[in-house]
Amino acid sequence: MGEEVEVEVVVENKQVILRDYINSGVPKETDMILSTCSLYLFRLRMRSPHSFTSRHVPSFTPASQPIVGYGVAKVLDSGNPNFKVGDYVWGVTEWADYALIHEPNSLFKIKYTDVPLSYYAGVLGMPGMTAYVGFNELCSPKEGERVFVSAASGAVGQLVGQFAKLMSCYVVGTAGSNQKVDLLKNKFGYDEAFNYKEEQDLDAALKRYFPQGIDIYFENVGGKMLDAVLPNMRMNGRISACGMISQYNLEKPEGVHNLMEIIVKRIHIFGFIVSDHYHLYPKFLELTKQYIKEGKITYVEDVAQGLESAPAALVGLFSGRNIGKQVVVVAHE
Amino acid sequence: MGEEVEVEVVVENKQVILRDYINSGVPKETDMILSTCSLYLFRLRMRSPHSFTSRHVPSFTPASQPIVGYGVAKVLDSGNPNFKVGDYVWGVTEWADYALIHEPNSLFKIKYTDVPLSYYAGVLGMPGMTAYVGFNELCSPKEGERVFVSAASGAVGQLVGQFAKLMSCYVVGTAGSNQKVDLLKNKFGYDEAFNYKEEQDLDAALKRYFPQGIDIYFENVGGKMLDAVLPNMRMNGRISACGMISQYNLEKPEGVHNLMEIIVKRIHIFGFIVSDHYHLYPKFLELTKQYIKEGKITYVEDVAQGLESAPAALVGLFSGRNIGKQVVVVAHE
Repeated sequence: MGEEVEVEVVVENKQVILRDYINSGVPKETDMILSTCSLYLFRLRMRSPHSFTSRHVPSFTPASQPIVGYGVAKVLDSGNPNFKVGDYVWGVTEWADYALIHEPNSLFKIKYTDVPLSYYAGVLGMPGMTAYVGFNELCSPKEGERVFVSAASGAVGQLVGQFAKLMSCYVVGTAGSNQKVDLLKNKFGYDEAFNYKEEQDLDAALKRYFPQGIDIYFENVGGKMLDAVLPNMRMNGRISACGMISQYNLEKPEGVHNLMEIIVKRIHIFGFIVSDHYHLYPKFLELTKQYIKEGKITYVEDVAQGLESAPAALVGLFSGRNIGKQVVVVAHE
Repeated sequence: MGEEVEVEVVVENKQVILRDYINSGVPKETDMILSTCSLYLFRLRMRSPHSFTSRHVPSFTPASQPIVGYGVAKVLDSGNPNFKVGDYVWGVTEWADYALIHEPNSLFKIKYTDVPLSYYAGVLGMPGMTAYVGFNELCSPKEGERVFVSAASGAVGQLVGQFAKLMSCYVVGTAGSNQKVDLLKNKFGYDEAFNYKEEQDLDAALKRYFPQGIDIYFENVGGKMLDAVLPNMRMNGRISACGMISQYNLEKPEGVHNLMEIIVKRIHIFGFIVSDHYHLYPKFLELTKQYIKEGKITYVEDVAQGLESAPAALVGLFSGRNIGKQVVVVAHE
């Protein structure tokens, strides 16, 4: 098509790549390879007035593509008029020093840079939106309602609890260590919290904290926790579900027995994927940015340094090693 | 309180009474007793301008109260200004020739008597409302969507299929006999139907009828059926659940394993009890009455004669003996 090609620069690009499909469900560090390749940055000058810049990596085969995930990045080059060199963006990118984004629709330009940029990987990014959509939008919370959050100290859970308190709800969280339980009660404003690993009987634990039952359950866990929650739901209860982490690594998911409660209690369950609701992002951003500015929302990150640390950080999520949102810093600004 | 009491009449009143709590879950005919007692009808004249008539049955103890259920009745006496002698009503009444209704809020006055009165125990009563609320109101069906109905030949299911066709949906039902499957296809307008008892593999059966998946599932059954449906749901699928009859008679309900599908497919599940939605009854009545008048809705009843036949009729529901809505005629007008 009559393109003029001009080589601009060659850089070393570190990437994290999966060695093979993970059969067991839980990734091990040895499943991932840190690989370095040379990245050739080309600029293609096309005759079309809607010019796009493309980067091309020779000998790039699908089986060796880096892992993709949510990240924050700086635009180094762009042929898309919506993104300019120097813009900061968050969205789906690669586990790599540099990445070529083919689908800029999955990127949001960062509007406010007076907060740490890493917040856009958490409280002001996908996890924050997940908490907001699942709790505020789907579950329609009312003042005084009783809210239960599983995996409550994670990136999403810590925010659900805070959104719930900002709605004047009573909120109880569960997590897998006493350190996390302390964090829930003393940092994130949860009214109560418990370590599910120390409870012989989840039903009894829930009855202790919710003698009158649960209006809203924010589901991150699934399996036995969901089965224990269902009989403790109140009439017209709502459950929003965006994850069931206890089930991801099982060959066959656990059976949930108490589904009759859905009918008896007129429960509504909302499975959701946050990206279906990104049209609400501007509303969420203004609200949450204001809360952060006023000190009404606290946010805790567990920061790992360098792309080399990413495999261990991912593995740690499945054993609950992280405290707060797990972030991997690939480059400092 | 200065009441004047005047005995009006004494009648024999047949009632069906439970002998004891049913431990096994499934009632047997021998669990129920047909008992006859003398009913003394009194009229209490109270000085209050808001006078109420009350009937009193001596030696009436809670353990011997008749079974309650939905029925159609004629008002023989009333002190409530909303109900006059001679009115027909439908709602929660007793398995008895005569009953004293303490809570007239659970009764609807019958507006149209140019249809069989038994319709108010079915297509124009609670089961019809259940189909309408669960399908039309909660699941927000759109033209061309793919609908699956379990227990499809029952009082509710036969109407869900017809409401679905009236919304230009593709609808498949399942039932437990070939006779019922014929009824679904040849009488109720289901596009397809199958006998779940003849399917070795429910998942394969669903894939045969829904190669592109299910948009709306009307859940009457629970357990294995729900587990087979979940992986066959489409993106943004909706499930309304007002019953899980396969689970009622189990000591421990079956485990449902495929709940992760709720998240992956962004499924919304609506547990509901129709009585929460009775404010919609007038809207439903006008719509459905019109459909019946125009011959757009067909309705099949399985009629048992006499209160004596009620225990066997109830037991038959659990083994699927009835074809269509099971009705017991206690008295002819």
